[in-house]
Amino acid sequence: MLAAHYAGNRTMTVGEAEPSPPGPGQVQIAVAYNGICGTDLHILSGHMDARVDTPAVIGHEMSGIIAALGDGVEGWDLGDPVTVMPLAWDGTCPACLAGNSHICQNLDFVGIDSPGALQSRWNVDAGLLVRLPATLSLQHAALVEPTAVAVHDVRRAELEPGQKAVVIGGGPIGVLIAAVARSFGGDVVMIELDPKRRKAIADLGYTVLDPLEDTVAWVEAWTGGAGADVVFEVSGAAAAVLGAVDYAKVRGTLVVVAIHPEPRPVNLQRVFWRELRLLGARVYQRDDFDTAVALLDTGAIPADALITKTVPLRDIQAAFDALTGGEAMKILIDVQAGQE
Amino acid sequence: MLAAHYAGNRTMTVGEAEPSPPGPGQVQIAVAYNGICGTDLHILSGHMDARVDTPAVIGHEMSGIIAALGDGVEGWDLGDPVTVMPLAWDGTCPACLAGNSHICQNLDFVGIDSPGALQSRWNVDAGLLVRLPATLSLQHAALVEPTAVAVHDVRRAELEPGQKAVVIGGGPIGVLIAAVARSFGGDVVMIELDPKRRKAIADLGYTVLDPLEDTVAWVEAWTGGAGADVVFEVSGAAAAVLGAVDYAKVRGTLVVVAIHPEPRPVNLQRVFWRELRLLGARVYQRDDFDTAVALLDTGAIPADALITKTVPLRDIQAAFDALTGGEAMKILIDVQAGQE
Ligand SMILES: [Zn+2]
Ligand SMILES: [Zn+2]
Repeated sequence: MLAAHYAGNRTMTVGEAEPSPPGPGQVQIAVAYNGICGTDLHILSGHMDARVDTPAVIGHEMSGIIAALGDGVEGWDLGDPVTVMPLAWDGTCPACLAGNSHICQNLDFVGIDSPGALQSRWNVDAGLLVRLPATLSLQHAALVEPTAVAVHDVRRAELEPGQKAVVIGGGPIGVLIAAVARSFGGDVVMIELDPKRRKAIADLGYTVLDPLEDTVAWVEAWTGGAGADVVFEVSGAAAAVLGAVDYAKVRGTLVVVAIHPEPRPVNLQRVFWRELRLLGARVYQRDDFDTAVALLDTGAIPADALITKTVPLRDIQAAFDALTGGEAMKILIDVQAGQE
Repeated sequence: MLAAHYAGNRTMTVGEAEPSPPGPGQVQIAVAYNGICGTDLHILSGHMDARVDTPAVIGHEMSGIIAALGDGVEGWDLGDPVTVMPLAWDGTCPACLAGNSHICQNLDFVGIDSPGALQSRWNVDAGLLVRLPATLSLQHAALVEPTAVAVHDVRRAELEPGQKAVVIGGGPIGVLIAAVARSFGGDVVMIELDPKRRKAIADLGYTVLDPLEDTVAWVEAWTGGAGADVVFEVSGAAAAVLGAVDYAKVRGTLVVVAIHPEPRPVNLQRVFWRELRLLGARVYQRDDFDTAVALLDTGAIPADALITKTVPLRDIQAAFDALTGGEAMKILIDVQAGQE
């Protein structure tokens, strides 16, 4: 089998590896497609070297087919199409005991803290499997995980039908949040700096603003002077964080989706003045995954528009480099290509 | 009658003024006591000169007795003890229409945006009156307004009985929040830099930590490794904002009570990682005022400990100066002294 490893020093290596049989309670998945996400790029950049031991098989946005069953696995058959919810919690920490196991204080994020999906045979605990409908293509199914992130963000915001949402940042997660918010009955405007991305977003049927325009005045007019019900900060930019509160209505919600490695200046005067609510949102819960599968299956998510291209595993370094350079939205790795 | 005016240039003046009769729908209050708060000190410092026209009668933490009734006022009698909820909203803006009139987008804060209580006869709209029980002293009743702030903060946090709260900042509002949180069944620890204030807080029966100690480790041990359910940031210090998130449990709440005139660095990585909730809380709603009256009436609020001293209106400049210098918790102005 082939496996891709993060080897440190901004390098992905691809090489032959020996498959191991699935352990008790595990299944072996023939990984079909694996999407590369911002966290993977973060790992490649070396920013997460303190957390990731090298060489590491990474990858966690995947789809595949069950290829072998370990002892004691029930309810699954060879050939079943699946994806994986890549969270392994301890079940014993205060967060788990309070019902927040998805952000367990000792969470093992599979594909970061333990081996991931960028290998043609991948053994995972059967408890992490998520069943895929036969009507959903395995390419689209590789978007279930990032779509579940977006579902979680929109649910966390408690966005109600008819409410107005501003999405700052038009990368893959921003577009997925917009699509999910719309499917939940929300009215969405996006803000994106890059003209090419703005064009692509407009082509999907979304109103998209240039942040260099007077976007606050635009949102104020759009909302009859009230401000938006929900603002999603997906850009990761310090300036976006500072300005995000200006879009929100009295008692409005700001969801912090992007990763901000440094503390960011926040206009707490505005948070106070309008009694805003600022929410952190991280990963997803099981319901979010199930909803993501359904949204992709019904076509509510513009999956084809998000997938810039699909490349074989051997070309993974070039794929990472293209994404780092901002040349693509989402690149899928065809993990089986060249394996037959 | 006597009236105190903010005259600009860090100066309060006191002088004779002519009382005017209450207009239709108004009552005239013989103001008994008026507490000086942080906002009043802000006004004196000149930081709010863009908002406050001089000379201005300020003051909004008060108690008094109805001295005259304007035309059409019903339900009130001469001699009734009252306080005032000093918020006048337009009733027509998006915030009001959404049920958040207490933070109306065009709010008139009485005592800042329109004349306040530092005068021996004060005409206010009867709709702003809050009835006081005969069992509550007028001195203690001057604490109803800041207590209502604390009630609002604790309610906004949705603090539940048995939950653990950290209060950062041991000034009057911090102590009031601690007292309200405890009366709601919460378990409270305070953090205060000033040793004299720490001593006073400990004397009230609260655990109080020095922020120069390892307070995060203390809170972690106190909460069995979980973190606090709620953190109230009342200090206004940038360092406190940055560190506040480290006390909070997964899905915990941070309430921003203090005024932060400049944007503050916030550890959004921690907000994301633990899915924290950061809430702005401003002023109060009618229920908060009613609860504040009840808490003061039953002795749940350490009113005597908070009131450092009571001084006549003529000494108001010295009172402002003492508070600016941090020499007192709360100073009440006896507005009737020397009037008889
Ligand atoms: Zn756990
Ligand atoms: Zn209003």
